[in-house]
Amino acid sequence: MANGSSRRLCVLGIDIGGTKLAAGVVTCDGQLLSQGRVPSLAHEGPDQVIRRLIDLCREVVAQAGLAPGQLVAGGVGCGGPLDPRTGVIMEPPNLPGWIDVPLVARLQDALEMPVYLDNDANAGALGEHRFGAGRGVDNMVYLTISTGIGGGVIIGGRLYQGENGNAGEIGHMSVAYNGRPCNCGSRGCLEAYCSGTNIAARAREAVLSGEQSLLYEIAGSPERISGETVEAALRAGDPLALRIWDETMQMLGAGIANVINIFNPRRVVLGGGITNFGGLLFDPVRRIALGRAMGPLTEVVEIVPAQLGGQVGVLGAAAVAMERMGLTGTEVGACV
Amino acid sequence: MANGSSRRLCVLGIDIGGTKLAAGVVTCDGQLLSQGRVPSLAHEGPDQVIRRLIDLCREVVAQAGLAPGQLVAGGVGCGGPLDPRTGVIMEPPNLPGWIDVPLVARLQDALEMPVYLDNDANAGALGEHRFGAGRGVDNMVYLTISTGIGGGVIIGGRLYQGENGNAGEIGHMSVAYNGRPCNCGSRGCLEAYCSGTNIAARAREAVLSGEQSLLYEIAGSPERISGETVEAALRAGDPLALRIWDETMQMLGAGIANVINIFNPRRVVLGGGITNFGGLLFDPVRRIALGRAMGPLTEVVEIVPAQLGGQVGVLGAAAVAMERMGLTGTEVGACV
Repeated sequence: MANGSSRRLCVLGIDIGGTKLAAGVVTCDGQLLSQGRVPSLAHEGPDQVIRRLIDLCREVVAQAGLAPGQLVAGGVGCGGPLDPRTGVIMEPPNLPGWIDVPLVARLQDALEMPVYLDNDANAGALGEHRFGAGRGVDNMVYLTISTGIGGGVIIGGRLYQGENGNAGEIGHMSVAYNGRPCNCGSRGCLEAYCSGTNIAARAREAVLSGEQSLLYEIAGSPERISGETVEAALRAGDPLALRIWDETMQMLGAGIANVINIFNPRRVVLGGGITNFGGLLFDPVRRIALGRAMGPLTEVVEIVPAQLGGQVGVLGAAAVAMERMGLTGTEVGACV
Repeated sequence: MANGSSRRLCVLGIDIGGTKLAAGVVTCDGQLLSQGRVPSLAHEGPDQVIRRLIDLCREVVAQAGLAPGQLVAGGVGCGGPLDPRTGVIMEPPNLPGWIDVPLVARLQDALEMPVYLDNDANAGALGEHRFGAGRGVDNMVYLTISTGIGGGVIIGGRLYQGENGNAGEIGHMSVAYNGRPCNCGSRGCLEAYCSGTNIAARAREAVLSGEQSLLYEIAGSPERISGETVEAALRAGDPLALRIWDETMQMLGAGIANVINIFNPRRVVLGGGITNFGGLLFDPVRRIALGRAMGPLTEVVEIVPAQLGGQVGVLGAAAVAMERMGLTGTEVGACV
C-alpha cells in the first residue's frame, strides 16, 4: 500500500455511552481510518446492546480496508464502576441493568482479538496524553467536566491505576468538607458543585427559592435550566448566573490547586462539555488555581483545554489498548 | 566480621531540623549501627551549622566500626522548600538565613561520598515504606502531622517526585475552599486546621473569644495552649476541646478520603506528634475517611500509624540515599 499510515498497526477504539455507541479504527499514530456510531438503546439490556456493538465494530473494521494482521487489538472506554483487570462492567449508572457484565470476554470471543477495558475518564486521559493536549508530557492530570466529573492521572508517561484500578477519582475530591451532598455519599465533592448537572441544579434551586433571574426567560421553566442556559444567562450578565458561576470557579480553582500541590504535574488538561464555556472557565480557573497553589509548583504547570473534542471517546478507547500492549506509536504492521 | 549486618552496605542518614541535627549509620536492611544528635543552633547561620553537622557525621561514622568500602553514601532530610535534584536548600522557615545553600555540594566535599537530599516528609515516606509501616506495599501515602503537615507519595514502590520534585504537598490540600487562611497563601488547607500549631491556635481563639474551658487551668494562660494541652482537656471531657477536636477529625477524615479517592492506595500511613493522640485520632479518622471515600477504594486500603517514631528522621534520610542509588536492602558490602 502506498499510504504510510495504512501500513501502521491499528487498534479498534470502542466508546460505550448511555446514549450512543461509537467505534473507530485508529492507527498507532492516532489517525482515524474509519468510524461509526449508533444509538445505545441501553434499555434493551446488555445482550442486545452488545450484539449491536459487535455489528458496529465489524462494520468499521470492514470500512478501514486493513491488511491482514494490521488490526491487533480493541480498547473500550465505558462509564464505571468497572474492573479494568477482569474486563467486567460492574453497574454503571448510565447503563441500567448492566450488572457484572463480562464485556471484555464477550468482545474477545466475537472479535477474535485481545480487548482491554478502562473507565471513560482514564481512557480520555490516555487519549489526550497520546494524541492530544498531553503529548510529550510525563506527568499530567486530566479532568472531564461534563454530566459528572471524571479524572485520570498520567505519572511518568503511564496511566496511574492505583491498587485496584480505581485511582484518579478527582471529581470526588471534597473541597467543602461540610458542603453539598454528592451522589457518591460524601459531601462537597467537585462533582457536587461543578458538574453540568450540579451547576444547573444549583441555579434551579436559587431560582426556585424566589431569586429574580433571566434564567426564567431563557429556560422557559426552572426544570429546563441546564448548563447551556446558565451559560446563556451568564453571557447576558444575569447576576444570579454570575454568582453561581463565580462559586463554581472558586471551587474548581481550589480543586485544581489541590491537584497541582499533590501531583506537581506539567500539565492539567480540562475537557468535557462544560469547558466549552471557554475563557469564562479557563480565565478564572487559571487565576484562582495558580493563585492558590504553592509557588515552585506553579512554575512548571500549564492548565490547558483538551484537544480531542468529540473524538476523545474512540481515540481514548484506542489509547487504552495501546497503553496496555505497550505500543509506542511508531509500530509498523506485518502487512508492509 | 562475625555479625551479618556489619557486612551489609551502609549509608549515613542525616536529619536537619530547626532544633536538632541528627545522624546515624544505617544498614541497607534498616539497622542503626550508630547515631548521635546535637542542637541545631540554627541562628548561628549555615556555615557554623554545617561545620557542626560534618563533625557529627564523622563521629557517628567512626563509632559504627565500618569496614573499608562499606559506607557508600549519605542521605539528608530537611525542611523544604529545597531542590532535591540540585541539592540546594532554598529558604526553609525553620532555618532562618539559609537562602540557596548548596548543602549537598558542601557535604559531598567534606564526607567524600555521594549525598542525596529530599524534604523531610518525602524522607519519612521513604523510611516508613522501606523500614516501617509501608513495607512490601506498592502504593502508599504518608502524612506527618506535627507542627505542620507534610506528605509523601509512594507509587509502584517508588517515591513520586512530580515534575520538579515538589509532589505530595498533601498538607496543602484545601478541604474548605473558603476556610481558614493558611501560611501557604491558600485557604482551608489541612495544615490550616489539623497541624499541632493550628489545633492550638483554634483552641486559643475560642478561649480568647470568651468560651469557658478547662484549657484555662491546664495551660495556665491562652498563650500556653498547645497540642498537648488540647489533648489533656480532651481526655478530661472539656466541651470546647471536644468541639475543636471533632472539627479537626472531620477535616482530616475528609482529607484522607480525598487521598484515597485520588490515589487508590493500599495503605495510608499517619505519623508525626499529633498521632500520639492514638485512638482519639485513629478511630474517628478511620470512620470518617472510610465512610466518605468511594466503596471499591475502601476495600483495599488500611489507615495505619507510622512505626519508626523518633527514628524516622535518620532512617528516612538514609532511605533517600538508598532509593536514589537503587539499593534493594539485600546488598552485601564488598567488605565481606
